[in-house]
Amino acid sequence: MNFKISLIATVLLGISGQAMAAEEPIKPIKPVQSINLGQVELGKKLYFDPRLSKSGFISCNSCHNLSMGGTDNLKTSIGHNWQQGPINAPTVLNSSLNVAQFWDGRAADLKAQAGGPIANPGEMAASHTLAVEVLESIPEYVMEFKKVFGVDKITIDEVTQAIAEFEKTLVTPNSDFDKWLLGDKAALSGEELKGYKLFKKSGCTACHNGEAVGGNSFQKMGLVEAYKTDSKAEGLSAVTGKDADRFKFKVPTLRNVEMTYPYFHDGEAQTLTEAVDVMGRLQLGRKFTDEENGQIVAFLKTLTGDQPSFMMPILPPSTDNTPAPKPFD
Amino acid sequence: MNFKISLIATVLLGISGQAMAAEEPIKPIKPVQSINLGQVELGKKLYFDPRLSKSGFISCNSCHNLSMGGTDNLKTSIGHNWQQGPINAPTVLNSSLNVAQFWDGRAADLKAQAGGPIANPGEMAASHTLAVEVLESIPEYVMEFKKVFGVDKITIDEVTQAIAEFEKTLVTPNSDFDKWLLGDKAALSGEELKGYKLFKKSGCTACHNGEAVGGNSFQKMGLVEAYKTDSKAEGLSAVTGKDADRFKFKVPTLRNVEMTYPYFHDGEAQTLTEAVDVMGRLQLGRKFTDEENGQIVAFLKTLTGDQPSFMMPILPPSTDNTPAPKPFD
Repeated sequence: MNFKISLIATVLLGISGQAMAAEEPIKPIKPVQSINLGQVELGKKLYFDPRLSKSGFISCNSCHNLSMGGTDNLKTSIGHNWQQGPINAPTVLNSSLNVAQFWDGRAADLKAQAGGPIANPGEMAASHTLAVEVLESIPEYVMEFKKVFGVDKITIDEVTQAIAEFEKTLVTPNSDFDKWLLGDKAALSGEELKGYKLFKKSGCTACHNGEAVGGNSFQKMGLVEAYKTDSKAEGLSAVTGKDADRFKFKVPTLRNVEMTYPYFHDGEAQTLTEAVDVMGRLQLGRKFTDEENGQIVAFLKTLTGDQPSFMMPILPPSTDNTPAPKPFD
Repeated sequence: MNFKISLIATVLLGISGQAMAAEEPIKPIKPVQSINLGQVELGKKLYFDPRLSKSGFISCNSCHNLSMGGTDNLKTSIGHNWQQGPINAPTVLNSSLNVAQFWDGRAADLKAQAGGPIANPGEMAASHTLAVEVLESIPEYVMEFKKVFGVDKITIDEVTQAIAEFEKTLVTPNSDFDKWLLGDKAALSGEELKGYKLFKKSGCTACHNGEAVGGNSFQKMGLVEAYKTDSKAEGLSAVTGKDADRFKFKVPTLRNVEMTYPYFHDGEAQTLTEAVDVMGRLQLGRKFTDEENGQIVAFLKTLTGDQPSFMMPILPPSTDNTPAPKPFD
């Protein structure tokens, strides 16, 4: 009898959970559906390998640090020779869910993105040729590329493919909010739930929706009121050449937003409180009270999911033939 | 019967293995004997936390990268604002076995060492006060320090103690050479064994001996013939003030030496072949033939042991009260 009741309750909970998730503008993060594990393991090494940079000091993980929400928690990043980057490093977490990559969407997908920083003189400052030359000089890498891709000669194509495949594993399911979406009513506190309702009612979900709570559209920064910034970034117009696209940026994901401070493309908002206030005023023409702001922030913190969990990779050593890093040239 | 023979063989192998290890100048690495696991877990986070630096970009792992033999594989390290360090970053692997820390031994132990780079203006460029202020602003850290050390207020003393305790776990047992020392005759090839015999006979083991194959004495760099270098490092004399100690450096461990390139305190030797040649000429007054050099290099590569194996730590996020990093001040 008890068993039956419990079974019925589970079924009902399951149905109402699904129904609820179906109605909400935010969807729970799905586990990774299809992945090439050989590419993932190789890509993980490449992601952590600073030898893909000219200096031998900067890896993908330097600015998209997987111990820190997949970002560097700096306003703008530090590149080769301590150059100051032009824009805030977006998180790599859940980036496979983005409609395109970079704030201005100039890369169609993760594979296209991965080649960018390696060759950017302000970031890793290497070249694709140099990166491949380094990898080709290391027998363990040569063997692993052969095993995984069946190639005798490494090209940047396999390098970026492997990095992208690793990055696809960096989703963060099981946040409290997802548990709530999936039917666990107790997963959110009253304050958090109020925050979510206000987040929806105020119109935040017009842009911050879907699995990634953002990442799926470009929107103008400063819709109701102009955004004042020293940043020279112009957003989508740099890609499309259209004036109408000036200051349109990819809507950032709000998944794990508690960990991905500071906020906005220029990193000028240091706290969630500040970010919520600015978004309310500039995008929605609404001044949230301190209480409302606190509720939304409480809700946003329920979007922190399971962080990537893996063994620290061990990189194969360079050989006598590996081009030496040039940090001070 | 078979079982008995196998048992006897095992016992004999055990005895002969122990006898062999006892006679050899190099000893197998012992597993970690006594460790505080709470401190280790906390120390691991601190080791990976770039918020202990002024820029928020440099952590202990930046220059003592556990994916890369516990070093940065650069001649000299990159510090705050891309400053060029004065000396080659020694590996953190097996550093608990060192007689003292730093090339000049100016820190008595790992705990004393750990505070150095945090406050060094050319390295992490923070201060102990700032580092503690950052940690104190993060509730998860405050709780963890309380749990592990029973303190209500964090001081640099607990910070360096935890980092040191984590570093004590970074030993690398089970190298092929240790297997050989422990009785597995098949663990070394003929070439590798020739290399070891030559290494001993030539006198390398006068300095490179013990568990870490070095790390337990200070010796003059350039004993038979002067070492020519642009490096301004003077070694032990900077600590003792004694002229006799000029150019005396701590003998580096040769454990994992295949991974800890480039070599010497100035990082000027890019390859093992070059390092063996220079050591032979300058320290022993002996020019190894190419064949001999190759044998010694083959032996040295058998000193690579199990690399540290652990889950990438996830760092607790900063709060609104955390002092912001200042990378470009």
